[in-house]
Amino acid sequence: MAEKINYNKAAQLLAENDNFLILTHAQPDGDTVGSGYGLCFGLQSLGKKSKVVCSDKIPDKYGYILKNAVEDDFEPQCVVAVDVADIELLGKYKSVGERALLCIDHHSTNKLFAQYTLLDTGAAAAENVYLVLRELGVEITPVIADCIFTGISTDTGCFMYMNVTPRTHRIAADLIEYGANAGMINQLMFDTKKYGYVMLQKLALDGLEMHFDNQCALIVLTKDMMKKCGISETEVEGIAAMPRQIEGVLAGITLRERSDGSYKVSMRTRDPIDASAICGKLGGGGHKRASGCQLYCGVEQAKATILELVGSALEES
Amino acid sequence: MAEKINYNKAAQLLAENDNFLILTHAQPDGDTVGSGYGLCFGLQSLGKKSKVVCSDKIPDKYGYILKNAVEDDFEPQCVVAVDVADIELLGKYKSVGERALLCIDHHSTNKLFAQYTLLDTGAAAAENVYLVLRELGVEITPVIADCIFTGISTDTGCFMYMNVTPRTHRIAADLIEYGANAGMINQLMFDTKKYGYVMLQKLALDGLEMHFDNQCALIVLTKDMMKKCGISETEVEGIAAMPRQIEGVLAGITLRERSDGSYKVSMRTRDPIDASAICGKLGGGGHKRASGCQLYCGVEQAKATILELVGSALEES
Repeated sequence: MAEKINYNKAAQLLAENDNFLILTHAQPDGDTVGSGYGLCFGLQSLGKKSKVVCSDKIPDKYGYILKNAVEDDFEPQCVVAVDVADIELLGKYKSVGERALLCIDHHSTNKLFAQYTLLDTGAAAAENVYLVLRELGVEITPVIADCIFTGISTDTGCFMYMNVTPRTHRIAADLIEYGANAGMINQLMFDTKKYGYVMLQKLALDGLEMHFDNQCALIVLTKDMMKKCGISETEVEGIAAMPRQIEGVLAGITLRERSDGSYKVSMRTRDPIDASAICGKLGGGGHKRASGCQLYCGVEQAKATILELVGSALEES
Repeated sequence: MAEKINYNKAAQLLAENDNFLILTHAQPDGDTVGSGYGLCFGLQSLGKKSKVVCSDKIPDKYGYILKNAVEDDFEPQCVVAVDVADIELLGKYKSVGERALLCIDHHSTNKLFAQYTLLDTGAAAAENVYLVLRELGVEITPVIADCIFTGISTDTGCFMYMNVTPRTHRIAADLIEYGANAGMINQLMFDTKKYGYVMLQKLALDGLEMHFDNQCALIVLTKDMMKKCGISETEVEGIAAMPRQIEGVLAGITLRERSDGSYKVSMRTRDPIDASAICGKLGGGGHKRASGCQLYCGVEQAKATILELVGSALEES
């Protein structure tokens, strides 16, 4: 019954409905937060009731977005998911996700769990939300522009990644003209690190391992290290980018110990290594160049498991 | 005799002349390299003779630009400087700089040393070169687009800094359509670090000092550290961004020991601290948020000198 739709149809569905519950994915990033609130504020500007929910607490650094949220008391009727590829990523809202009318997403791995899915894999989810809002005739206020800019900027690594198109830059230009605080947002997202985070980076580098002729770099973040530096699980996301940055590395791996002692694997790759294929073999997934999975074992076993798959992928390439 | 001119007049000067010698600044960065070669290739496409010189070796990472340079044997007649605020920054080409007909720059501190100066401080130097090339009627080839994109992207910290305008993003969009390898360039400039560089970052963080209620962060790079990590002076530029990234830091200082034992100070600040004012007091200069100077003394004296000025600036703010 799942149907892929275009921008026009997505706008039509939103225009026809009201009392929206907008679902963002657990362990929220800038794209799901920006997409969710951008859509919410856009719908509210049309006089519709709307609210955003997330299974996890949205980090404080998005405070400039959250401060504009209004607590509206209403009975949600229409469920919309943004930047959500799979209901498994909704955490405690998984069962609500089963009722989704619409999903606006950009993951090629989208499971088409919603009745209607707007899927454009060549853009940030927030870019897709923006185009739907324009189709809906929403006036882009500075508050909405901040949300969309946050999604686009974080999803593209501040316009660094291969997923940036001319359209991405042109939308960014429009958003700045609509009043987005681009410089402030980028500074907060990309150029500001807690002291503890910087210390955690240093500790992670102390244990940096190079494998397979330096084509694979691996770091481990233990609960102890994070505790020592005063950095919580939700604050370490960016560290996963470090191993792949090393010249010649095709697969960068970060193993992060979780509260239950299991290990979250974050994998960042370069052409031709397919991170989502490797993580898929371990029950995870994501994008081709950035994926993750969960390993329920000790650290040495976790290392061995992931390195074996990476080794095979490097050999095949 | 120095005269400030607009894009149209700059294009006219280039159209009327031939046999160009293009000067870039010493310790070249992406903006001067991209501006220099972008202009050079643009002039060559009009059938004019042109070559770029730099007092220092241009780092290998710009190889994708340098490989397009053609060795042309001719007697230079018309000197043009790009991204050069002062002839003092030309190194061994200082005396040639005195003969500059035109300077295309973006530093508010430009000394107007050339006969004619095109100065737009709201853009990367390469953005200004691009607009002159368009005015000249140059067809933007993929090779030229790569040069200009390199300048804009590096000067804006990959579209992160406050100096990014809607025009910056729209030009980036155009350049990608003209064939710029944006993803590859960004990956090389921002997402690739030598293993030794990463180790040097770690060593620098080992000695991180926080001053003035954590509003000032300071790191030192000694010759020994750089030697141990196999990183040369021209490769450490990016490390200067680290201290300011720490949350709450208004002044980030990097002291780098030079071959003669003196210290190069790189200062990165946040509002309201004016780096160029502080470095100006020590005989240096640059931008408001990024400046430098040279201190001919030991490391402890260098620290004391710069910290005293930073302390005063923080107190006044």
